[in-house]
Amino acid sequence: MSGRYALGIDFGTESGRAVLVDCAEGRELGTAVYEYRHGVIDERLPAPHDGVELEPDWALQDPEDYVRTLQEAVPALLAETGVDPAAVIGIGVDFTACTMLPTLADGTPLCVLEELRGNPHAWVKLWKHHAAQPEADRINKVAAERGETWLPRYGGKISSEWFFPKALQILDEAPELYARADRLIEAADWIVWQLTGTETRNSCTAGYKAIWAKDAGFPPTDYFADLDPAFATVVDDKMSRDISPIGERAGGLTAEAAGWTGLRPGTAVAVANVDAHVSVPASTVIGPGRMVAVMGTSTCHLVLGRDSAIVEGMCGVVEDGVIPGLFGFEAGQSGVGDIFAWFTDHAVPPEYHAAAAADGVDVHTVLVREAAKLRPGESGLVALDWWNGNRSVLVDADLTGLLVGGTLATRAPDIYRALIEATAFGTRVIVDAFEDAGVAIDEIVACGGLPQRNAFLMQLYADATGREFKVAESTQTPCLGSAMFGAVAASAHEGGYDTIFDAAERMAHLRDETYVPDPAHRAVYDELYEQYRELHDLFGRATGSDAMKRLKALRARALADG
Amino acid sequence: MSGRYALGIDFGTESGRAVLVDCAEGRELGTAVYEYRHGVIDERLPAPHDGVELEPDWALQDPEDYVRTLQEAVPALLAETGVDPAAVIGIGVDFTACTMLPTLADGTPLCVLEELRGNPHAWVKLWKHHAAQPEADRINKVAAERGETWLPRYGGKISSEWFFPKALQILDEAPELYARADRLIEAADWIVWQLTGTETRNSCTAGYKAIWAKDAGFPPTDYFADLDPAFATVVDDKMSRDISPIGERAGGLTAEAAGWTGLRPGTAVAVANVDAHVSVPASTVIGPGRMVAVMGTSTCHLVLGRDSAIVEGMCGVVEDGVIPGLFGFEAGQSGVGDIFAWFTDHAVPPEYHAAAAADGVDVHTVLVREAAKLRPGESGLVALDWWNGNRSVLVDADLTGLLVGGTLATRAPDIYRALIEATAFGTRVIVDAFEDAGVAIDEIVACGGLPQRNAFLMQLYADATGREFKVAESTQTPCLGSAMFGAVAASAHEGGYDTIFDAAERMAHLRDETYVPDPAHRAVYDELYEQYRELHDLFGRATGSDAMKRLKALRARALADG
Repeated sequence: MSGRYALGIDFGTESGRAVLVDCAEGRELGTAVYEYRHGVIDERLPAPHDGVELEPDWALQDPEDYVRTLQEAVPALLAETGVDPAAVIGIGVDFTACTMLPTLADGTPLCVLEELRGNPHAWVKLWKHHAAQPEADRINKVAAERGETWLPRYGGKISSEWFFPKALQILDEAPELYARADRLIEAADWIVWQLTGTETRNSCTAGYKAIWAKDAGFPPTDYFADLDPAFATVVDDKMSRDISPIGERAGGLTAEAAGWTGLRPGTAVAVANVDAHVSVPASTVIGPGRMVAVMGTSTCHLVLGRDSAIVEGMCGVVEDGVIPGLFGFEAGQSGVGDIFAWFTDHAVPPEYHAAAAADGVDVHTVLVREAAKLRPGESGLVALDWWNGNRSVLVDADLTGLLVGGTLATRAPDIYRALIEATAFGTRVIVDAFEDAGVAIDEIVACGGLPQRNAFLMQLYADATGREFKVAESTQTPCLGSAMFGAVAASAHEGGYDTIFDAAERMAHLRDETYVPDPAHRAVYDELYEQYRELHDLFGRATGSDAMKRLKALRARALADG
Repeated sequence: MSGRYALGIDFGTESGRAVLVDCAEGRELGTAVYEYRHGVIDERLPAPHDGVELEPDWALQDPEDYVRTLQEAVPALLAETGVDPAAVIGIGVDFTACTMLPTLADGTPLCVLEELRGNPHAWVKLWKHHAAQPEADRINKVAAERGETWLPRYGGKISSEWFFPKALQILDEAPELYARADRLIEAADWIVWQLTGTETRNSCTAGYKAIWAKDAGFPPTDYFADLDPAFATVVDDKMSRDISPIGERAGGLTAEAAGWTGLRPGTAVAVANVDAHVSVPASTVIGPGRMVAVMGTSTCHLVLGRDSAIVEGMCGVVEDGVIPGLFGFEAGQSGVGDIFAWFTDHAVPPEYHAAAAADGVDVHTVLVREAAKLRPGESGLVALDWWNGNRSVLVDADLTGLLVGGTLATRAPDIYRALIEATAFGTRVIVDAFEDAGVAIDEIVACGGLPQRNAFLMQLYADATGREFKVAESTQTPCLGSAMFGAVAASAHEGGYDTIFDAAERMAHLRDETYVPDPAHRAVYDELYEQYRELHDLFGRATGSDAMKRLKALRARALADG
């Protein structure tokens, strides 16, 4: 099996990244990145339509940037690594989600049509397009009124980031364009369509972002009709009920796509996937009992189970959503790395910046160095990690950050450590919620960038959660996971694998180091966590203080009056 | 009455300050400052006894620094102003308190005796000497057990900073030195003794710091005996029951003190006073209904009343304590300017420091400029101003700072404004407590340094408290007030005044500008204040969350384990 390679392509927010992986051992041979020409479109459309300004909360992308990623990054990667294209047996892709677009029946994005190019609704709505909140509110309200049985699977609330709010916003605001769209499709599936010439719909985005379940399918037509009569048949008119499970082969590379990439026509292409979810097998997790924490600006938690379960405030549970044959549970913390970045950017005095400059390191490094000198409890602080709201388990974007315990002796490393502890406690709340619902979590595997760079963070997470943490070896698990699915699409016969289980066995690895809770630290953290939980419930639940809601309302009024 | 001057001397923490004031109009002719040679002694005794290290929480001073202030600052002031010493008719002094020392019967400080100079207990215990906490705890416990009736006058708790804890610490830790001390005396009274050759005890420090009341005197002997049999007769042995009301003449300048200062022997010297309290008439307040807020690193609130009353959590109520014939109520916020200083020093990112440097201003100025652009409520934040504990109304040094409402969009000016608002709300709680006890407050006069420099702060205080704020004209109200009492000591016959009322009428002034609550802002602040009160009671009272206490305990344990 030596000399067989799989290609993983991760389509991110600002760029696309391609990694070539050795199928035998999962070794990453090289990486190529294409920075999207139009990046995130959130102020005005690209020229010549740059007279069209976007409303606040809009975030679009150009689908041609995805094609350019294939055209630019893949040939560059082949050239850099010197790998023979004939030895590349499979391709997998993962994407941000829900990132969706309207197309013609043949897959042509509406935004490439000259007459529609000036209409913002013709473009790709990026995951962080938040302008469909009114539609999300309607979707939730109608679902609650009707007692839709799928609502509890999603923590009781659908996000404005998801598929149907975005689709409904097109219908609400641009009905003529909605009518013109033959297809509404995840960009993940659209790029696979470009690669293979075949339209597929993957079970991951369908399940986590479009309210699909393997047993129950999509919500009923009369539910969609209650949202808008013109929306009643959105699934049958513009989507598909034919959902391909993760791990399947979507098709073979077309001649055109082979031309773009420099790969062989017919090269196996896997069904599309989502960045966080494809990281699970890339982190060696292919069965129940181990949680994957994809830690970056936010953290996504994924757990596998043999049975479905309702876990408080989770983002979704999807059969075949992560690994075929298992239920994939997703939970999340909406602010982690971005809270640390907020702190270093906006609340750290010059002396630490100067120390970082003097040592040729970043401010985080200086703060970690100082925070590591503190004993658990020594800061006298506890924080609630809600600077970007709370996803799991409270599912409440209007919650905000809290810090208790400040004194005149409080210094930046104290607060920095308290914020890290708060995010660790946020993880522990989620772990507790899973265990309370009968979903066992014996170990946590971290991936996503933050964990590999920061041993202090990982040890603190182990101490504060009381769980052993391991760390994925790869720093680009999305690409590795996609490549693994590419190898599975190729099959063992071609030098790949027949299942993702086999692929994970050989291609996915953990780092040698493991983080075991320090018993002495854990005792203090058990007490601090009790304190965190008390404040969590006090400020986060309806029975406690509504201070955060009232402050947000006052802020909104102040801004509106201005 | 032209050409008559009074001298006010303010003995502070780091230096002594002398100001010469025109008796007719209160015009300040000049200022001279003497930086104490030994400053605050909190690490080791001065040489040759610098082998003697002090325990944590100790803070001493050298009484000879007070004499040097007389010898250095006063002649310098006379030289600078060119005023004829014969035209200086009276002297008043104010002091930090309780700042006390042990002396021989003739007033000689024990620390000038060669054989005692190496004993820390022989020196002056400065107001912020906090090492007598065990004694304060005993004093409070025994008082509560005995149901001492004076306890409610002091908010139910005696501070470790006050006279008897400090005296009892000497007895506890250095009984032989306690026995050697013929007198235990406030430094305020001691310096008047040095000026006049006569030992007096002023009603202000006696009342606010030594549990004395005009009607009831000191606590009973058997109370002191319950603290320690050797302490039973502390008042009669080492203090005096002869208390001089504020506004009296203590005596005339001795020939020796005339030599030190360059003033005429026999110049009238007033009974000593305390810095904050003497600021009241200097701020034009000589009757009920108007609160004086002495705003600096902390804020001291003083109100006059015709009758006594028990106000929740006040620091003390003393008849003749501020103005003869009236009850003086004192309350306080333990952190105000020092919280703002903490914030600018330890939580403001480099860009604001750079902007300050570029504009040639301090960081406060930049933050005020930015914070002033925000509308009330716009920050989305509310804070509890307990970074240095809470003095009034909760009387709890273990309370700590809290900030609610942080988001990734929160910036330094948002937090800065929230901290200012929190201190304003802290003032409002105190005003409410007075009014709830039937002590009317119609208007607030601010003095102390912060108010004169910061119109933004004053307008915000007016809006957030719903009270009109006026500002004292003098930026050195302690010296002005002392000079006014000096003029009263001299009497009208000598070109001064017969009463402090007369002196205030002519010598004290307000600034022209006044800060009236903006009705629109006030409505928002009423809502924010309601939120502040809810959190205040939640975290500050026994019925709510004990988070702050638990965090302090965890911190103490972490430090002890280290």
